Amino acid sequence: MKIAGRSTRTIWPTGTTVRVIDQTRLPFEVIDVELRTAADAARAIRTMIVRGAPLIGATAAYGVALAMTEDSSDANLAKASTLLNATRPTAVNLAWALGEMRRTLAPLPTAQRVEAGFAKAAAICEADVAQCRAIGGHGLRIIEQLWNNAGKPDRFNILTHCNAGWLACVDWGTALAPIYMAHDAGLPVHVWVDETRPRNQGAALTAFELGAHGVPHTVIADNTGGHLMQRGQVAMAIVGSDRTTASGDVCNKIGTYLKALAAHAHNVPFYVALPSSTVDWSLSDGMAIPIEERDEDEVACIAGRDKDGRVQEVRLLPENSKALNIAFDVTPARYVTGLITERGVCAASRTGLLGLFPEHAKDAAE
Amino acid sequence: MKIAGRSTRTIWPTGTTVRVIDQTRLPFEVIDVELRTAADAARAIRTMIVRGAPLIGATAAYGVALAMTEDSSDANLAKASTLLNATRPTAVNLAWALGEMRRTLAPLPTAQRVEAGFAKAAAICEADVAQCRAIGGHGLRIIEQLWNNAGKPDRFNILTHCNAGWLACVDWGTALAPIYMAHDAGLPVHVWVDETRPRNQGAALTAFELGAHGVPHTVIADNTGGHLMQRGQVAMAIVGSDRTTASGDVCNKIGTYLKALAAHAHNVPFYVALPSSTVDWSLSDGMAIPIEERDEDEVACIAGRDKDGRVQEVRLLPENSKALNIAFDVTPARYVTGLITERGVCAASRTGLLGLFPEHAKDAAE
Repeated sequence: MKIAGRSTRTIWPTGTTVRVIDQTRLPFEVIDVELRTAADAARAIRTMIVRGAPLIGATAAYGVALAMTEDSSDANLAKASTLLNATRPTAVNLAWALGEMRRTLAPLPTAQRVEAGFAKAAAICEADVAQCRAIGGHGLRIIEQLWNNAGKPDRFNILTHCNAGWLACVDWGTALAPIYMAHDAGLPVHVWVDETRPRNQGAALTAFELGAHGVPHTVIADNTGGHLMQRGQVAMAIVGSDRTTASGDVCNKIGTYLKALAAHAHNVPFYVALPSSTVDWSLSDGMAIPIEERDEDEVACIAGRDKDGRVQEVRLLPENSKALNIAFDVTPARYVTGLITERGVCAASRTGLLGLFPEHAKDAAE
Repeated sequence: MKIAGRSTRTIWPTGTTVRVIDQTRLPFEVIDVELRTAADAARAIRTMIVRGAPLIGATAAYGVALAMTEDSSDANLAKASTLLNATRPTAVNLAWALGEMRRTLAPLPTAQRVEAGFAKAAAICEADVAQCRAIGGHGLRIIEQLWNNAGKPDRFNILTHCNAGWLACVDWGTALAPIYMAHDAGLPVHVWVDETRPRNQGAALTAFELGAHGVPHTVIADNTGGHLMQRGQVAMAIVGSDRTTASGDVCNKIGTYLKALAAHAHNVPFYVALPSSTVDWSLSDGMAIPIEERDEDEVACIAGRDKDGRVQEVRLLPENSKALNIAFDVTPARYVTGLITERGVCAASRTGLLGLFPEHAKDAAE
């Protein structure tokens, strides 16, 4: 998507190196950094210079390609893969991308591995872009329909939570892809951006990327969505998903569930946009998904820019108070209006998902 | 309640001056400041050294008493009243306390007004303490009953939102009074403290006062309550109220409504503690309550303590992103399990409220 009018991706090759936007500097500075080695790529993932499952996968893929420029032996292919795999062990796309790279490069003569590595990493990026673009197209049609049904209002308010935008992917994003397409198509979308405590991905990343592309938006405290829905000021909600069960239960950033309950209470359509790679076909009940508990300091402290322009972390809690930091929650399928996938939109149910992905009929849990 | 083992109030007289805890320094420093003049009292209210409707009323009352030490003439009584009334014009208790002071002092000879002023201000404080204590006693019985019904678990989890504790009153608080009484009675209460963005009254004030008194508590992001209720980790919720309609609709800090919806979805008892002075008998439908919209900088920026121990404000949003800051929301009566008032507990309904306050049968809106 665009930053200051210029089309930008989160990651792009430059000859035999790779550049990425340093997301730790957002939203206050837009700086890109060069990755020259597999170690650079691993560090970028580990320190969250890049984040978001698809972008982590893309960076790992380029990391293997960079490793081949250093030493294209079988030993180094294995070593780079191990190094990169250890950076964020829970990200599904990371292991998947590394597997794709190994399967592509291992059969080739070492002399061909640099070129093939960059080509394969680029293909992984293009596949992600195509998938997000497809999600965007399917979501766009929902927005168009709801906007038409509402009598084409001058402002069509969409609420989103956390960041499921292009900064988490290579381009477009998942939950935000339909919004970008609607905006680019001239629909008067306006986005309510949940700030998304404790890590504030909404305030920092979603607000940044929407603003950079020119999409009207307003940041709100996470507490505000219920009130806005009650007052008829939310036409629909779209969020992403970290893991979706075969029955359509959705695990996403903590707080998603509260918004789904409010949407249900006020008949606000609540959509979840997801690439099918996030569907865990082995699980039916979302309550069985293990929920990550993170460091309490993410609740106790917060970073922002001080009056001198420096990014500083400040502590919010009394010295002796503890905090609990649950990172995700589960929204049962009955509160989800529909799932927007790269193959189309379906009901949040086993039947709905298998209608689009019949090849999983055998492995989908009941 | 106690700070480091010592019983403390938010405001207390010292001869012919008054001292208050400087709440702008909490939770990082506990400092009390002296108020010597009506202007000092007005400044304390305006700059939020004191906050919370009952405490604002108490401070204004002492402000009038202080004015009498400067000049006990009729002219100065009127002048002080005007000055104090202009500090936070929307607080109901402020105008009420000033009216009480004028009615008490105006008929008296000027020579008696200092002593009578301090006596009346002290009486206003004692009445607030008695009211909060009564709320606490009625709420305590609910907690005892729910704890017994749950099989006397080792930890009884109560969720609260914002700060309706003793720091907002003279002592005890409203929503927190039952919790202090349960704790002091030896019940194993543990409080989930919503941080309560954007002004973080939960993280800063509720966590501080619970910790200072020794009540076990854990601060959580506002996004977390739905997940905890879904997992059976919330036994009940108690919140305060800024305004309650004659039908039992509750206007309270933004985000209260989302917690009420989640409590309803999971059969978690959801109680609202309130002095009857917050009941607006003239209104039936809570949707008619005007909702304050505050400065967007309260969402865009946040204050905390930096690594050098200084309190700093930092900006969280991208430079060009706007924020919306809705301060309150309305929870319809059907989501409220009961109202805990100084006269007892009742259903959140016209019938329930009039059962306890029959003197309002004529003025209660239908």
